[in-house]
Amino acid sequence: MMSNTFGRILRLTTFGESHGPAIGGVLDGFPADISIDFNRIRHQLARRRPGQSAVTTARTEADEPEFLSGVFEGKSTGAPIAFLIRNADKRSTDYDELRQVFRPGHADETYTAKYGHRDHRGGGRSSARETANWVLAGALAAHLLPDVRVMAYTCQIGDIRLPADAVFSPDDIDKYPTRMPHPIASSSAEELIADLKEQGDSVGGKVAVRVIGLPAGLGEPIFDKLHARLAHAMMTINATRAFEIGSGTRAASMRGSEHNDMPADSQTFATNHSGGVLGGISSGRELAFEVTFKPTASIAKEQKALDAEGNVVDLAVRGRHDPCVVPRAVPVVEAMTWLVLADFYLLNRIHTLY
Amino acid sequence: MMSNTFGRILRLTTFGESHGPAIGGVLDGFPADISIDFNRIRHQLARRRPGQSAVTTARTEADEPEFLSGVFEGKSTGAPIAFLIRNADKRSTDYDELRQVFRPGHADETYTAKYGHRDHRGGGRSSARETANWVLAGALAAHLLPDVRVMAYTCQIGDIRLPADAVFSPDDIDKYPTRMPHPIASSSAEELIADLKEQGDSVGGKVAVRVIGLPAGLGEPIFDKLHARLAHAMMTINATRAFEIGSGTRAASMRGSEHNDMPADSQTFATNHSGGVLGGISSGRELAFEVTFKPTASIAKEQKALDAEGNVVDLAVRGRHDPCVVPRAVPVVEAMTWLVLADFYLLNRIHTLY
Amino acid sequence: MMSNTFGRILRLTTFGESHGPAIGGVLDGFPADISIDFNRIRHQLARRRPGQSAVTTARTEADEPEFLSGVFEGKSTGAPIAFLIRNADKRSTDYDELRQVFRPGHADETYTAKYGHRDHRGGGRSSARETANWVLAGALAAHLLPDVRVMAYTCQIGDIRLPADAVFSPDDIDKYPTRMPHPIASSSAEELIADLKEQGDSVGGKVAVRVIGLPAGLGEPIFDKLHARLAHAMMTINATRAFEIGSGTRAASMRGSEHNDMPADSQTFATNHSGGVLGGISSGRELAFEVTFKPTASIAKEQKALDAEGNVVDLAVRGRHDPCVVPRAVPVVEAMTWLVLADFYLLNRIHTLY
Amino acid sequence: MMSNTFGRILRLTTFGESHGPAIGGVLDGFPADISIDFNRIRHQLARRRPGQSAVTTARTEADEPEFLSGVFEGKSTGAPIAFLIRNADKRSTDYDELRQVFRPGHADETYTAKYGHRDHRGGGRSSARETANWVLAGALAAHLLPDVRVMAYTCQIGDIRLPADAVFSPDDIDKYPTRMPHPIASSSAEELIADLKEQGDSVGGKVAVRVIGLPAGLGEPIFDKLHARLAHAMMTINATRAFEIGSGTRAASMRGSEHNDMPADSQTFATNHSGGVLGGISSGRELAFEVTFKPTASIAKEQKALDAEGNVVDLAVRGRHDPCVVPRAVPVVEAMTWLVLADFYLLNRIHTLY
Repeated sequence: MMSNTFGRILRLTTFGESHGPAIGGVLDGFPADISIDFNRIRHQLARRRPGQSAVTTARTEADEPEFLSGVFEGKSTGAPIAFLIRNADKRSTDYDELRQVFRPGHADETYTAKYGHRDHRGGGRSSARETANWVLAGALAAHLLPDVRVMAYTCQIGDIRLPADAVFSPDDIDKYPTRMPHPIASSSAEELIADLKEQGDSVGGKVAVRVIGLPAGLGEPIFDKLHARLAHAMMTINATRAFEIGSGTRAASMRGSEHNDMPADSQTFATNHSGGVLGGISSGRELAFEVTFKPTASIAKEQKALDAEGNVVDLAVRGRHDPCVVPRAVPVVEAMTWLVLADFYLLNRIHTLY
Repeated sequence: MMSNTFGRILRLTTFGESHGPAIGGVLDGFPADISIDFNRIRHQLARRRPGQSAVTTARTEADEPEFLSGVFEGKSTGAPIAFLIRNADKRSTDYDELRQVFRPGHADETYTAKYGHRDHRGGGRSSARETANWVLAGALAAHLLPDVRVMAYTCQIGDIRLPADAVFSPDDIDKYPTRMPHPIASSSAEELIADLKEQGDSVGGKVAVRVIGLPAGLGEPIFDKLHARLAHAMMTINATRAFEIGSGTRAASMRGSEHNDMPADSQTFATNHSGGVLGGISSGRELAFEVTFKPTASIAKEQKALDAEGNVVDLAVRGRHDPCVVPRAVPVVEAMTWLVLADFYLLNRIHTLY
Repeated sequence: MMSNTFGRILRLTTFGESHGPAIGGVLDGFPADISIDFNRIRHQLARRRPGQSAVTTARTEADEPEFLSGVFEGKSTGAPIAFLIRNADKRSTDYDELRQVFRPGHADETYTAKYGHRDHRGGGRSSARETANWVLAGALAAHLLPDVRVMAYTCQIGDIRLPADAVFSPDDIDKYPTRMPHPIASSSAEELIADLKEQGDSVGGKVAVRVIGLPAGLGEPIFDKLHARLAHAMMTINATRAFEIGSGTRAASMRGSEHNDMPADSQTFATNHSGGVLGGISSGRELAFEVTFKPTASIAKEQKALDAEGNVVDLAVRGRHDPCVVPRAVPVVEAMTWLVLADFYLLNRIHTLY
Repeated sequence: MMSNTFGRILRLTTFGESHGPAIGGVLDGFPADISIDFNRIRHQLARRRPGQSAVTTARTEADEPEFLSGVFEGKSTGAPIAFLIRNADKRSTDYDELRQVFRPGHADETYTAKYGHRDHRGGGRSSARETANWVLAGALAAHLLPDVRVMAYTCQIGDIRLPADAVFSPDDIDKYPTRMPHPIASSSAEELIADLKEQGDSVGGKVAVRVIGLPAGLGEPIFDKLHARLAHAMMTINATRAFEIGSGTRAASMRGSEHNDMPADSQTFATNHSGGVLGGISSGRELAFEVTFKPTASIAKEQKALDAEGNVVDLAVRGRHDPCVVPRAVPVVEAMTWLVLADFYLLNRIHTLY
């Protein structure tokens, strides 16, 4: 796996800069003869789209994909599926002053160190606009596991947490602009975000994922464990800071007798500290992990920043940015999960010959 | 990258089961003409070796490696470096009863689901004995970055944390059997571990890593970010539950104005919430991350377990196990860090032609 | 390397079907800060373009590429370079009768066996139209080796061979519609091709390549030898039947004392039976190899063919086809050579640290 | 795929120098639950072993492999299969004078250019001793395709060719020391080889391969065609000069109407110019290709050679060398064929979901 390609059997190669003509990708290794549900793809892109609610950025993109290959008469052919999403609402001039200034918490400084020459407009290749490619590809990948359900939702924004006893169905998640499926918690979070927007500030949060119906045996021993690749996938998402499988950081304080999941019968366990993975391989029980996002780095509040000459300058980042990336990150987390799972699913077809 | 191979340019391929004749590996992509310090390698293996102190397992292994290729007259040749570590202290009969029983928190169940046929003795391929291969290879990788210092240490065992204001040098770490470099904290942790051993129980913890002297520009955009690959590497280590870069899970509660690292001058920042990585690429400042380990799953205390027929049985795991894996995990975390950094270092030589 | 991706450091991923909306590709791993000569790219595409002379197919394509990413202000940024070439002159109805008939010498039969569902129009993904992607990418790759000259030319068409003592410069090659740089041989070949076109038949041939200025040290030992990867690259080109390095098939009849290239001095050798490669690695002397192409499989003459039910049917392939693919294969061979050489050049930067 | 690893799903990683302690390899991706026939492996190693007849080198190696992992109770476990072959009959002092002299037709010069520092003894890593690893791994790979028969044999030595109408069964091949299955042709070749040995000279030749029972659908479109990977595999074998699929170089002189294989019925074709591959994918008919080997470069006859300072010196290569590598290359060609076919077979399990 290299920089702009993800996966081993199902391989997504992407391209595109925030303010270039288009972003897009090539999904290779997709099996033949699968009917493609284009509405499902559009629906997922709409869930990620900026401008969808009061809690997100005002930049709008139609995000209408063009499919260029790999699908014939509505079904996949086994050839690579290539797609394009044109960039529409570009305000590159918003970024002119950023040609020589490194925004705090952004890749401006490190891309310059690495490449010398870079497209500075809107972060160029490092922009989260790239995640639209992943959402599209993830929606394709989901076609390969029709019996699996991936449920991603916001479980924390700032200090506001989804109550541990919250009861909700997958369909409830999108009823809340924060994607935190609880009326009181979500309202509080919306208020918090509105306040911070007012102040030109931002806040972090967490996304939780639960996967139901995953077959046992997915994941590879040693260097390609299911949770290792999920960690890799999640840490590729812009602004992530932590990955936790099952018990996560809480495991540090626990006893073995408390942490080992005890069976009541062959299907039932009182706890899921393993997160559905044992030795890097899915157990067939619920897969559960969490991803932490930092607060949006682009804030209107004035900050100190370095410029290309190493001077400290004052900077208030203009442009249109989410005060909290978590609600729109939910479909991105979901998409990366699909890409990982579908890849392992295909890879798993070769471990025994029967 | 596939199951038993790690890295893209510097590639480690490993093999071996806990109770087979030997474990070993092949390190490919290692540049030519590097003088190899074999004492450095043996020293790192000794740091990982079981039986080194009261807080670790009583299983002892001489762990004397045999080098089979790739080094000629004391220097690397560019050919793959192959090495073997024979398994000496095997008590396979300890494991006879485990042929049909799946130990809680272990890979027994999932390997059976995936492969049908497995070497059940001591976990076979899934045993942490494999990490000796990584420690050896990591010590080789370290030769490629002579100006970089990787410092790994225990920062939490159970509820006992290394004080935030602890001051210590790299040489202090191994003075403490827990590798938590603080006299009071380490003593408390030793006591806790002794108590748990007595009770046939175990406890989790955390390892912190700080890397000094890393050049800017390591890491690749999009799917091969430095912290994504570090996350991947750390989650391949047995018993890990969480990976946190910089601010980690704390970022969820923070404001952008608080989280963005502010420059005082071109070299000095008051905080390191980025953990030394921006947009997936090293900034040239200190790299900082933490890894959470679960409590050892193999405990003497009686637990419920599943057998191969799906029945719930009582199980007290015999054999010799660390009540807390964290102290011996420290050199493993360090080794995986070296493998990641050296690989990116080599990869980075191709991004510009000058 | 997988199906639709070529290379390890410089990686080309392609997509597109002959009669779909577009073909295109993503070239990843291209170093930053290289000024791109778009005229050079267009010139190479024009050399491959159908309809350029009497000896080629009448299908015409403007083949005007659109660049979507990776180039900013005329220079590469290190981000993947994505490009599109729209399909213009599609006469899909020419292919309607081929939905259920397998053209002899074509992939129709095997794609159906492999995938079940396929885009049958013009060969779909298996069409040589794909080679336009390679020519474009090869022209980009050539930017990385400014001091190297790749010279490809026709050395045989049917039984007509380029005389062994032919003297010509690189600029002479394109003066001949056959790209066989010799007035008499080329005229004979043109006549032969005209005759065969008349008869609805076709003929094979050979392309020779000589590379001047290649540095020593390119190629990797064992499984990634320079000539092994060149062989791989050449055998990916549609209609190729043989790859020969240096002495090629003639070596079978030779003595060792005759075959070993003898030095006159450190730079001068009387023969080049090695073809510029020793042990899989370039010697710094002229690289020389040949590629054999079969006669075009699509001929107007009536032939026997299988249909999807296994019946033998009569078939005269309609559509517009080159009676000899060799002249237009020359820039394709050249492009694949560039992709291989540039990849090894980048890879070679990591074998020693100085 | 990188230098010392071959394959994508079934991946062989090898190591070892001719005069180091051992050679060996790791075969990863081998499915679980396959009973291993160790006699079959030993038999193939014996076929490659030096010193087996008058036509081969006098160097003898017991070549008794040690298996270190991946097999438990006689069956594969899905873990990597590691093996070692100790080097026994090393006469390193034969090579002392070669430390500073580059043997013509060998990798001495190019390894020095690439790596600076090398193990010069017996060619080190570039020695054909490495092929013992391939033969072993190939014999393992053959377990995955029990219904396929790979038949490799000598079809040319010097100007002596196997008659086109020779009739023989697979079992006949090893009855001839030349592995050219024809009494007269083989006797002539033996005489030729004996003469050349006397003269301190050597000769080239060709190996033909026919594969029966291969399923349709193996091979991947575009960059991973079955014959492209076979070409790659064959050109990795020491001393190979040419790869020809089906009609090979003869295709250059042929007409399309003559070259296209015409069906008599759904199973029967009068010719096999395609060599069993269409569009890079197996048709299910006989796979047929040929590999050309150059004459052994190490000859006792005095030759001119370069030394490390660029001087021309006289050199008569001492040591024990085959005057013709072709007979012992037969099992090597066969092994590489198995590695390619088994890899594609596993890869092919993922192209459709049913």
